[in-house]
Parts: sequence; C-alpha cells; structure tokens
Amino acid sequence: MSIADPMFPMRRALALAAAAAHAGEVPVGAVITHKGAIIGEGANAPRGRHDPSHHAEIAAIRAAAQHLGSDRLIDCALWVTLEPCAMCAGAIAHARITRLYYGAEDAKGGAIIHGPRLFTQPTIHHHPEIYGDILAAESAALLRDFFAERR
Amino acid sequence: MSIADPMFPMRRALALAAAAAHAGEVPVGAVITHKGAIIGEGANAPRGRHDPSHHAEIAAIRAAAQHLGSDRLIDCALWVTLEPCAMCAGAIAHARITRLYYGAEDAKGGAIIHGPRLFTQPTIHHHPEIYGDILAAESAALLRDFFAERR
Repeated sequence: MSIADPMFPMRRALALAAAAAHAGEVPVGAVITHKGAIIGEGANAPRGRHDPSHHAEIAAIRAAAQHLGSDRLIDCALWVTLEPCAMCAGAIAHARITRLYYGAEDAKGGAIIHGPRLFTQPTIHHHPEIYGDILAAESAALLRDFFAERR
Repeated sequence: MSIADPMFPMRRALALAAAAAHAGEVPVGAVITHKGAIIGEGANAPRGRHDPSHHAEIAAIRAAAQHLGSDRLIDCALWVTLEPCAMCAGAIAHARITRLYYGAEDAKGGAIIHGPRLFTQPTIHHHPEIYGDILAAESAALLRDFFAERR
C-alpha cells in the first residue's frame, strides 16, 4: 500500500469498506486524492451516524473540502469501492471532482452506468473523467460476504 | 406563522432562504416536519461551510435524523423552497421521506420534474408524495433578487 502503487487510494478505500462491514454497515469506502496524496476519506455509516447522507463518498468529499477550505475540489480524484448512487453522483458534480474511479458496479443503486446515468443527463454540467472496474473483485467480495452473513 | 397556518413550514423555509441570501449563499431553505412540528431545518451554505453537500435539504435531513436517532425519517415531510437537485432527491429517497413539498421550479438544476426526474427512475424504489408550486412566487422573488444584486 505504498505511494509507488498506483492503486493505493483504492486499497485504502477497500480497507475503509472492510471497517464499515465490521461496524455493521454496508461495506463501501472512499478516498479523495489531490497531488498524489489522500486529503479526505470516508466509510459508509448511515445507520451508526443516524444520517442517511453519510455514504462513503459524501463523507470523503466533506473531509477533503474542509481540508482545502473550499466547496470546489479542483484537481481532485474520488476513489470509491462501489458505483456511486444518484445522491453521491450529484455531490461529485457539485464538488467539481476531476476524476472518478470506482470498483464494483451496482446494478441496483448505481447512477453512473445504471439507473439515471447521471453524467449523461444534459442538466448535469460537470462531467468527471470516469474509470470503473478498479479492484472490483475485492469490493464485490466484501459486499457478498457482508450480505451472506446477514441472510 | 402560527401552527394554525398549514403553510407555516414553507414560511419558515422561506425565512431560512432569506437568511442564506444575507450570508451570500444562493437562497434556499428547508424544514422537516413530523407530527405537525418542525424537527429539522437547514439553509443552503456550501460556500460558507466549505461543504458542497451542504444544501438546505441535506442539512435539514441530517438535523431531523439526529433528532429521531435514525437514518429513516418515517412519517416525515420535507418542505423546501426550490425544486431539489439530484443529490438532494437521492437523499430524500435514502431518508424515506413520506411527503415532499417544494416551492419554485428549477429548470436548470432540478431533478424532480426536470433533468433526471429521479422519482420516475425504475431503480429509485422510494417515492414520496410530491407537491410543487408551494409559495413559489416568494421563493422565486428571493432567488431573482439575489442574482440581480450579483450581476
């Protein structure tokens, strides 16, 4: 998990997702990078935080925006273990995230290549570069194990 | 602005919107009601808070969820002065808001009757009852004055 590993942000996001599962939350993790360093991170925790907006992406975006002292995350990348939902895709647009890297696809709740496909909508004016399927097998395994334990 | 006035939540949301304008933020306000009382409120403040997710709706939802000690706002209504964007519509779905009342339409950024029309998307499984055009003229006037002063 060294800085020399170009996947280090996603490996950190996967560690945050695993911690979320341990806390009884759906395992999703996210980090924001700026100039090669992590400046914000978050884990999915709507139940524990009593906050339906506390998805990993929103938590990471908030932390990075505090770090930069701005609501615009210029030249920042978001790495998240699962395809973002509509809420998080909207936040990505508001934050002006430059690049989005996600892991597993989410046919049920995803809003990037599924459902509303938010960045294809003409009223959404900010479009990050989008890279999917990043360490997707690791993310999918965390989700599969989490839901298997609950059945 | 008494409890006997059925529009009292929207009047409070309009007051929050006016306060946002005074603080230099796009004037949008929101409140959450539960059993006839306001249990959460918020004003748009992404710039001042350094938080791109700090829309009025998200702030009100967070406050109400803290109040109820749950990420599900069962039997709650959200009153907001402007048609919600995709981020906020997604949060409304996650929070399981029962009824949505909004004021002015937002052809540019709205996601209820414009753009992605989020609650018509088959992957969005929660659908609040939706009532638009509630004291819309007052909300539109606040927005018009705000942007006129900035030009």
